[in-house]
Amino acid sequence: MPHEPAAFDPERFRREARAVVDWIADYWSSVAARPVQSQADPGWVRSQLPTHAPESPEPLEAVLADLDRVILPGLTHWQHPGFFGYFPASTSGPSILGELLSAGLGVQGMLWATSPACTELETLVLDWLRELLGLPDRFASSGAGGGVIQDSASSGVLCALVAARERATGFPHATQRPQPDTRPDPRALVAYASTATHSSVEKGLGIAGIGRDRLRRIPTDAAEAMDPTALATAMEADVRAGLVPFFVAATVGTTACGGVDPVPQLADVAGRHRAWLHVDAAWAGAAALCPELRGPLVAGADRADSWGFNPHKWMLVNFDCHALWVADRGPLVQALSTQPHYLRNAASESGAVIDYRDWQVPLGRRFRALKLWMTLRMIGAEELRRRIREHVRWAGEFAGWLAADPRFELVTPPSLSLVCFALRAGDGPTAALLDRVNARGRVFLSPARVAGRLALRLAIGGTLTGRDDVAAAWGELSEPA
Amino acid sequence: MPHEPAAFDPERFRREARAVVDWIADYWSSVAARPVQSQADPGWVRSQLPTHAPESPEPLEAVLADLDRVILPGLTHWQHPGFFGYFPASTSGPSILGELLSAGLGVQGMLWATSPACTELETLVLDWLRELLGLPDRFASSGAGGGVIQDSASSGVLCALVAARERATGFPHATQRPQPDTRPDPRALVAYASTATHSSVEKGLGIAGIGRDRLRRIPTDAAEAMDPTALATAMEADVRAGLVPFFVAATVGTTACGGVDPVPQLADVAGRHRAWLHVDAAWAGAAALCPELRGPLVAGADRADSWGFNPHKWMLVNFDCHALWVADRGPLVQALSTQPHYLRNAASESGAVIDYRDWQVPLGRRFRALKLWMTLRMIGAEELRRRIREHVRWAGEFAGWLAADPRFELVTPPSLSLVCFALRAGDGPTAALLDRVNARGRVFLSPARVAGRLALRLAIGGTLTGRDDVAAAWGELSEPA
Repeated sequence: MPHEPAAFDPERFRREARAVVDWIADYWSSVAARPVQSQADPGWVRSQLPTHAPESPEPLEAVLADLDRVILPGLTHWQHPGFFGYFPASTSGPSILGELLSAGLGVQGMLWATSPACTELETLVLDWLRELLGLPDRFASSGAGGGVIQDSASSGVLCALVAARERATGFPHATQRPQPDTRPDPRALVAYASTATHSSVEKGLGIAGIGRDRLRRIPTDAAEAMDPTALATAMEADVRAGLVPFFVAATVGTTACGGVDPVPQLADVAGRHRAWLHVDAAWAGAAALCPELRGPLVAGADRADSWGFNPHKWMLVNFDCHALWVADRGPLVQALSTQPHYLRNAASESGAVIDYRDWQVPLGRRFRALKLWMTLRMIGAEELRRRIREHVRWAGEFAGWLAADPRFELVTPPSLSLVCFALRAGDGPTAALLDRVNARGRVFLSPARVAGRLALRLAIGGTLTGRDDVAAAWGELSEPA
Repeated sequence: MPHEPAAFDPERFRREARAVVDWIADYWSSVAARPVQSQADPGWVRSQLPTHAPESPEPLEAVLADLDRVILPGLTHWQHPGFFGYFPASTSGPSILGELLSAGLGVQGMLWATSPACTELETLVLDWLRELLGLPDRFASSGAGGGVIQDSASSGVLCALVAARERATGFPHATQRPQPDTRPDPRALVAYASTATHSSVEKGLGIAGIGRDRLRRIPTDAAEAMDPTALATAMEADVRAGLVPFFVAATVGTTACGGVDPVPQLADVAGRHRAWLHVDAAWAGAAALCPELRGPLVAGADRADSWGFNPHKWMLVNFDCHALWVADRGPLVQALSTQPHYLRNAASESGAVIDYRDWQVPLGRRFRALKLWMTLRMIGAEELRRRIREHVRWAGEFAGWLAADPRFELVTPPSLSLVCFALRAGDGPTAALLDRVNARGRVFLSPARVAGRLALRLAIGGTLTGRDDVAAAWGELSEPA
């Protein structure tokens, strides 16, 4: 049969897409039987593939055969039911279909005018989500604020840092007009986060030209919650030294062990210095769907300038989908706006529409709201809550098994669906246990350093993960070496 | 029939995904019959959808019905054969399937260790592509450089700007060690681009804390090519004023009319000041697949520090897919690297692998190499070239029709597949013509300002666009009002 080179032939697409759909369904049906972690050595995947690009078209079957032969053995399977590492990257059928539709429609949402539905659905779905999470009205698009989808929490915090930097210095970097040499020196700015804050804040300060050394790392308590008194002391000392505190990054659910900063107290301190308060709830934010878990997660959000979380972690939306809300879109848009002639249009000039180009680093943007919309509609808020509650319950059970075994101890109390633990025998045996368990391939966990010691993390939240898998993890960990 | 709430049920996925695939195939089969540009008023899309998120799951059929009823009328159809606006965002069956597979696998490629195939396939495919485009060896991953996929050209140039800023100042922002107050003032840095350079360079300077006012806009000739003598003069004047030239952004294919900077001459000038030379070939770069078009597109690339183009524009890969190559990955990685404990692993510490987390702003990354790989394999380089040649030929024909009509004139000579033209009667009638043609819905063009006057742009490159559609565009434009 001759191979059709057409870039898009609908009948060929139907046929090939069905084969890909079946391949994906088979993958999900069989992924549990694979080792979670890839066993590939560096260079193996590449060594199995041709050195040069093909001149002539190859059939889909050849690609699928290489997926089976080369790609799958080269993957660590994040959708495996035994994946408990890092944080979950849970996805779902409806979300995958949303991504497929976004690719199939192939529209650009940089401006409202370049595809109005792309912008309006995003604004609507982030308003839905704000309400579901119990976030304050100040983040609703009907007021001065609003929500936007970014690729990741790193990009979200970078946007917040840049908006905060400009707000604190009078927007000197955001204008083409030559600025006086007396403009504020960005090197006088100082940001604050805890010793447990995600690396993206430090990285963002580097990108934004403020400097990683301008991040003060405030100590935490044993559960990785930032100490507000230490924050106040640090900010006052910097003011006395002639520096300008401009940004406080609070974390709701630290990466290592799920610590929750006391946001209301941090807001008191930040407010005294008119510093921008950003709340990073990347992983834990999804749990705010459940009213009984919400309290500490959204506390103080009514005084935050920005608040972000990742539906692509624990809310069944595939990466990339970070939801960022700002209380006042003014500084963000002023810092990130561009107005080239070739993008001018009547709708933008009317001021009646949102142009999300001005809420992010990139210019282009794909129709990511579809996957969030389809996940919310086809799964429903009730089922999302049921799953989160189940994961939290399983984490509690796992922590109970651990507490009953004298070889183990909890490093911190379980936080939502995350359990952080170690062998009492110390770091060496704990590291050896991690290596042994991960090498066996039934489950996968990742390490962290908490209060100076090595801890193992069991992060529950995978799409296919059941109670049996949590029990299997305990079986693997507790089996004598 | 009861509705299954399972987040991923393989049989349900097969059934629903087939319905979505059919919906997409039907969309592509019928898109030509729709008006290219959305007729929706601001707020209409939102007004058609519920105010609150659903508590209970809804069937796929309800979502598909809303796609037909609300979303489609709210889209400007970038895949419509009559879409000639901005630059094409051409996609293809194989690319859509690559995006689907990426979502279906749901793996994270932030580190080599988190899914080795995700990194190795990306490095390989960018090496393939480097060779296909005739880019110099310095960008090959086997040496000091290499390629990476970013979401967009804006993010690519931001990464280049940050790496260049750090290289020029001794990496003061990239370290946690307190920096002396004598560290170089980033406000002394100056960047250079032409008056026709894309807004992303200016925006990136703002984000990077250097300031938009630190961009010198160098004049161009009538075809929007930067004047190297004016560049040299500006750089020397800044040095005399105590400033530090650190970055030159050359453009190969300007946004308005496809102008091509004389990169070799710009490299001479940039080299004298040890400034970072970045080449933005976002749209035109794809034409370097054709040896006979390649010359001016890759000239001087052997002296560029970074070179980027968008396979998501004119190479049948769906957004987002920007390919960025650097000659030396050292400054990029040093500027963007983070090493939190929870991501430490033996492979990273061995230095034998690439961790793409350190080549970009975000931490997380999805498996975007799949869609580039599948497009190259299932379409093949030969067919990609054939299409580009066809588009260039049609642009020449269109320019010929125009030149033969005394009402019209070319504003600049056609550049590859882009034709920039106006009515001799002036800006007012030209603007009215654009509005009239776009309102009719058979074709869509976008405007630009070139050499102080309003021009219309016909950018050929859509997946479904044929010679008939180019002829139809001429018919719409040339028909008496």
